[in-house]
Amino acid sequence: MALKARALYNFQSENKEEISIQENEELVIFSENSLDGWLQGQNSRGETGLFPASYVEILRSRSGSNYTDYSSSPAGSPGHDSSFYTAPSNPSIPYQGSFEDDDDDDWDDWDDACTVVEEPRSAPGTNGHPSPSLQYPPAYGRDQHAGYRPKPALERQDSMSSSKRGSVVGRNLNRFSCFVRSGVEAFILGDVPLMSKIAEVYCIEMGSKGPQWRANPHPFICSVEDPTKQTKFKGIKSYISYKLTPSNINSPVYRRYKHFDWLYNRLLHKFTVISVPHLPEKQATGRFEEDFIEKRKRRLILWMDHMTSHPVLSQYEGFQHFLCCRDEKQWKLGKRRAEKDEMVGASFLLTIQIPTEHQDLQDVEDRVDAFKAFSKKMDDSVLQLTNVASELVRKHVGGFRKEFQKLGNAFQAISHSFHMDPPYSLDALNNAISHTGKTYETVGEMFAEQPKNDLFLMLDTLSLYQGLLSNFPDIIHLQKGAFAKVKESQRMSDEGRMDQEEADGIRKRCRVVGFALQAEMNHFHERRVADFKRMMQSYLKQQIIFYQRVSQQLEKTLRMYDNL
Amino acid sequence: MALKARALYNFQSENKEEISIQENEELVIFSENSLDGWLQGQNSRGETGLFPASYVEILRSRSGSNYTDYSSSPAGSPGHDSSFYTAPSNPSIPYQGSFEDDDDDDWDDWDDACTVVEEPRSAPGTNGHPSPSLQYPPAYGRDQHAGYRPKPALERQDSMSSSKRGSVVGRNLNRFSCFVRSGVEAFILGDVPLMSKIAEVYCIEMGSKGPQWRANPHPFICSVEDPTKQTKFKGIKSYISYKLTPSNINSPVYRRYKHFDWLYNRLLHKFTVISVPHLPEKQATGRFEEDFIEKRKRRLILWMDHMTSHPVLSQYEGFQHFLCCRDEKQWKLGKRRAEKDEMVGASFLLTIQIPTEHQDLQDVEDRVDAFKAFSKKMDDSVLQLTNVASELVRKHVGGFRKEFQKLGNAFQAISHSFHMDPPYSLDALNNAISHTGKTYETVGEMFAEQPKNDLFLMLDTLSLYQGLLSNFPDIIHLQKGAFAKVKESQRMSDEGRMDQEEADGIRKRCRVVGFALQAEMNHFHERRVADFKRMMQSYLKQQIIFYQRVSQQLEKTLRMYDNL
Repeated sequence: MALKARALYNFQSENKEEISIQENEELVIFSENSLDGWLQGQNSRGETGLFPASYVEILRSRSGSNYTDYSSSPAGSPGHDSSFYTAPSNPSIPYQGSFEDDDDDDWDDWDDACTVVEEPRSAPGTNGHPSPSLQYPPAYGRDQHAGYRPKPALERQDSMSSSKRGSVVGRNLNRFSCFVRSGVEAFILGDVPLMSKIAEVYCIEMGSKGPQWRANPHPFICSVEDPTKQTKFKGIKSYISYKLTPSNINSPVYRRYKHFDWLYNRLLHKFTVISVPHLPEKQATGRFEEDFIEKRKRRLILWMDHMTSHPVLSQYEGFQHFLCCRDEKQWKLGKRRAEKDEMVGASFLLTIQIPTEHQDLQDVEDRVDAFKAFSKKMDDSVLQLTNVASELVRKHVGGFRKEFQKLGNAFQAISHSFHMDPPYSLDALNNAISHTGKTYETVGEMFAEQPKNDLFLMLDTLSLYQGLLSNFPDIIHLQKGAFAKVKESQRMSDEGRMDQEEADGIRKRCRVVGFALQAEMNHFHERRVADFKRMMQSYLKQQIIFYQRVSQQLEKTLRMYDNL
Repeated sequence: MALKARALYNFQSENKEEISIQENEELVIFSENSLDGWLQGQNSRGETGLFPASYVEILRSRSGSNYTDYSSSPAGSPGHDSSFYTAPSNPSIPYQGSFEDDDDDDWDDWDDACTVVEEPRSAPGTNGHPSPSLQYPPAYGRDQHAGYRPKPALERQDSMSSSKRGSVVGRNLNRFSCFVRSGVEAFILGDVPLMSKIAEVYCIEMGSKGPQWRANPHPFICSVEDPTKQTKFKGIKSYISYKLTPSNINSPVYRRYKHFDWLYNRLLHKFTVISVPHLPEKQATGRFEEDFIEKRKRRLILWMDHMTSHPVLSQYEGFQHFLCCRDEKQWKLGKRRAEKDEMVGASFLLTIQIPTEHQDLQDVEDRVDAFKAFSKKMDDSVLQLTNVASELVRKHVGGFRKEFQKLGNAFQAISHSFHMDPPYSLDALNNAISHTGKTYETVGEMFAEQPKNDLFLMLDTLSLYQGLLSNFPDIIHLQKGAFAKVKESQRMSDEGRMDQEEADGIRKRCRVVGFALQAEMNHFHERRVADFKRMMQSYLKQQIIFYQRVSQQLEKTLRMYDNL
C-alpha cells in the first residue's frame, strides 16, 4: 500500500538511483521505512528512485500525527534507519523484559538468536556494517575518501532542522555531507540552542603536543572474561554472556553482545568528533563456535581497553551504567535516561570546554592535514599487515602444517621399511627415525596452533585500529567544514555583510571543533604507541618461545640417536 | 647407408616396437650402433622395428673383419651400446691424449664441454640414465619389478656365447633376461672357462648375520675436494677437476667427472652381483653453475665413501689406479690394463671364495625374499622422502621466504606510516618496528638458505640409496635364476638324466652367487644403518641450529622495544 508524501525542499539527483524532487511536489513512497536515510518512491513525472527521507513529509490518511517529518527529528531521537544494521530501540515502547534474560525485549535479538536463520548483515571486513555495495548510497559518500570504509557514526543524526532559516552565512548545498548531517554545521552557525542545564563538562587542556582531553579523574580498567552460554525459552534461544569487572568497583556484571551493541549505538549517537572504537564484527553463522567466541572475547577486551582509556568515553554516564548496574529496574531506568539524553550529536559540542590559548586556525588546519595523510597511510599499512597476517594464519594452518606432516610421514615410512628385514633391523635406529617422524608431525601441529599465540592477537589489534582509523575521515571532514565557515564568515565580516560579533562566534565555535579533533588525534597517537609497542613485543615474544619450543622438541629427538 | 645383417637365432617380437626374425633371415639394419642392446631394421617381410643386436651378425662388404657378432662379444670388451648414456671407450684406438688435459682424447667430452649444446640425456630423477620412456625397451625390462628404475649395470655384458651348446640343463628362453645377459647362467652351467691365472681373490666369510665380504686388509678413505674450473684449447673447452686424497697415500690426484665415469663403467662391467653406487647425475646445461658443482662434489664424496667402504670395490685394481696414478704414461697403461681385464662379468664370479659352511638353499631363498620385500619398501619410502624433501626445498626457497618477506615489508610499511605525523612520532618505536621488518626479511633469507645446511645433505644420501636400491632387482634376479637351475638340475639328477657330479657343480656355483648376494645384502644393511643414522643426526642438528638462530635473531630484535 503506497503512501503519499510531500517534498519539503528541492533535491537534485546526482546518481542514477536517485530522482529529483521539487519543493511541494507530491510523491508516492513505496515504504515508510527509510534505508540509511533514503526513501524509495515516485515523483510527479513518473520517475522512480531514491530521495532523502529528510526532504519530505509523509502524508497520512489515518488519524493521529498526520505526517512524519524526517527533517525535524530531534537529535536525541533514535536513528530511525538503524534497523538496517542495528537494533531499533524505540523509546516509545517501554522496556518490559527482564534484565539478564529479557524474554520479550524490544531489541532485535538477531545477534544472539540461534534458532533463526538471518541474512548476512555485512560483507567481510566491514566490521559488521553493511558494505557500500550492499547499502543504499550513503549520503556522505560523495565526501568520503576513496578507500575508506563507511563509517556509520554520523548516519544516525539527521540534519538539524534550523530554527533560524536564512542565516547570513550560507548553508552547504549538499545536505548529506556529514558536516551537515552531524549537526556540526548548525553548531558552528550558532543554531544549536544552549540547554539550560548542562550537567556534563569535558575539558580540553594544552599538553606538550597540543590540545588533549583532560584525564578521567577516576581512571579504571575493566576485564572481560568467561564467555558463557546461556539459554532462555527452555533452551530454544541461547546467547553468550560475558563477565565484566570494572577495577573501580571490583564486582562483576554480566552482559550480552546486544548490550554492548546498545551501548555502542548510544556512543555513536552522542559523541560527535570522537572516534568511537568499533565493536568486534558480527557473524551470522557459527556464533557459538568456540573459536568465534574466543575471538569475540579477545576483541571485546581490546574494545573495552580503548573505552576505559578514553577520557571522554570512559566518563560517559551510559557507559558507567553499562559497567555497574546490577539491578533490573535500575537498568531499565538508566537505559531510558541514556536514550533520552539531549546532549548528543551537535549538542555534545556544547559540553566541551576548551583552553583559552590562541591557536592559529591555519596551523590547526596544517596539523589536521598532516594527521589526515598519516592516518590514510597508517590505514593502508594496517590493511597490508592484516592481509599478510591473515595469509600467514592460513599458511600455518594449511601449508606449513601439511609440509611438516608430510616430512613426518616420510620419516615414518623409512622407519617402517627398515623393520622389514628383521635380521638386519636395528630397533634403536628404527625407533629413533619413527620418533623423528612423530616429532615433525608434532611440529606441524605446533605450526597450526601457533597463530592462536601470536598472529591472532596481532590481527585483533589491527582490527581495532582499522575501526578507529575509518572514523577519522568523517571527523576530519567536520573540522574542514567548520574551518570553511570561519573563512566565509570572516570574508563577509570584512565586506561588512556580517557583524564581527557573529563572525567571532563562528570562529569560537570552530575552535571547539578544532580542539576536540586535536585532542582526539593526541589520544589516538598515545594509544597507538602503547598498543603497537605491546603488539610487536607480544608477537616477538611468542615467536621466540615458538622457535625455542621447536628446537627443544628436535633436541629431545636428536638424543635418541646418541647411543646407537 | 643401410647395412645388411643375418639373424643367428629366432626372435619372437613381444612389443609393437619389435619385429620377429628367423634364424638365417637376411635383414636390413638402419644403423650399426645398437641402442641399449637393440638394433633397428627391416626383416624380409618388410616389417621395420627393433630386434636384439646379439641375435644377428652384421654382414660387411668391406675387407677386414666381415661381421660384428654381437652375440659373441667377449665379456671383457667395452659395452658397445654405452654411447647412449656414457662415453664410448673403444680399446682399438690407442689412448693418445695427455693425462690431465687430454686434448684429443677418445672419450666423449660431453659432460665437461661447455661450448657444445647437447640434448638432455636424462629425465629428472633417473640418476643420469635414460628414463624408460626415453630409451628403447630394455631387454631385461620384462623381468623387472614395476616401479624400479632401469639399471644399467648388467646391460653392459652381452650374453656369453656358450662353447657347449646343447648342455643338459635347458637354457632360458628369454635370452635378454639379465640372468642370461650377465653371463651368470653360463657360469652356473659351468660354461665359463677357468682361467689359468687368477690373480685376485675376494673372500666371503660367515659373520654374525650371515655371509659377509672379508674386510679390505688395507682400509682407507678418500676425500673429494676443491672442484676447480680448468680450461684447455686456450679456453675454448673447460672442465672441473676434483682433488682426491686417499688416506693411505695422502698425496692428491686430480680427476675429472669423465675419469669417474670411466671408472664407473669399468665397475659395472666387472662386478656382477655387486651393487655399484651410481655416479651423481649428469646435467646437460649449467654445468658450471656454482650450485651444480657443489651438489656434484657433495655427491661424489658420498659415492667415494661408499666405494672405499666396500671390501671388494675398494680393492679393485682399476680403482686403486684411479686413486693413485700421478704419471701420464702409467695412467694410460693402467687404463688399458683395466680395459683388458678378463675377470669381469661372469668370470668375476670365479674370483669369489666362499666358506664351506652349509647353507640350505631354501633358507637363502627366504632371506633373499625378505630382502627383496624390504628393498622394494625402502625404495618406495626413499622416493617418498625424496619427494617431500625436494618439495620442502622448493617451499623454503619460494613460499616460506616470500611469506616472511611479506611480513617484513608490512612491518616496515607500518613503521613508515608512523613517521608521517612528526609531532607524535616516536622514533625509537618506529625504528624498532622497522628493524623487526628487516629481521623478518632476514629470517626469510635464512629459510631460503637453510636447505643448503640440511635438506641438501639428506637428498644427497637419498639419491645414493636410490641408486644402490635400483641395482638390487637385477642382482636378486641372478640369484633366482641360479636357484631355478639348481632345482632343475636336481630334478634331472633324481630322474637319472644328469650325473650327480654335474648337478653338484651347478649347486656349488649357485652357492657362490647366493653367498655373494648375501654378502652384498649384509654390506648394504651395514652402510644403511650408518648412513641413515648420520643423515638423521645431521638433519636434526642443523634444524636445531636453524630454529635457535631464528629465535636469537628475534630476541635481539625484541630488545629494541625494551626502553621505549
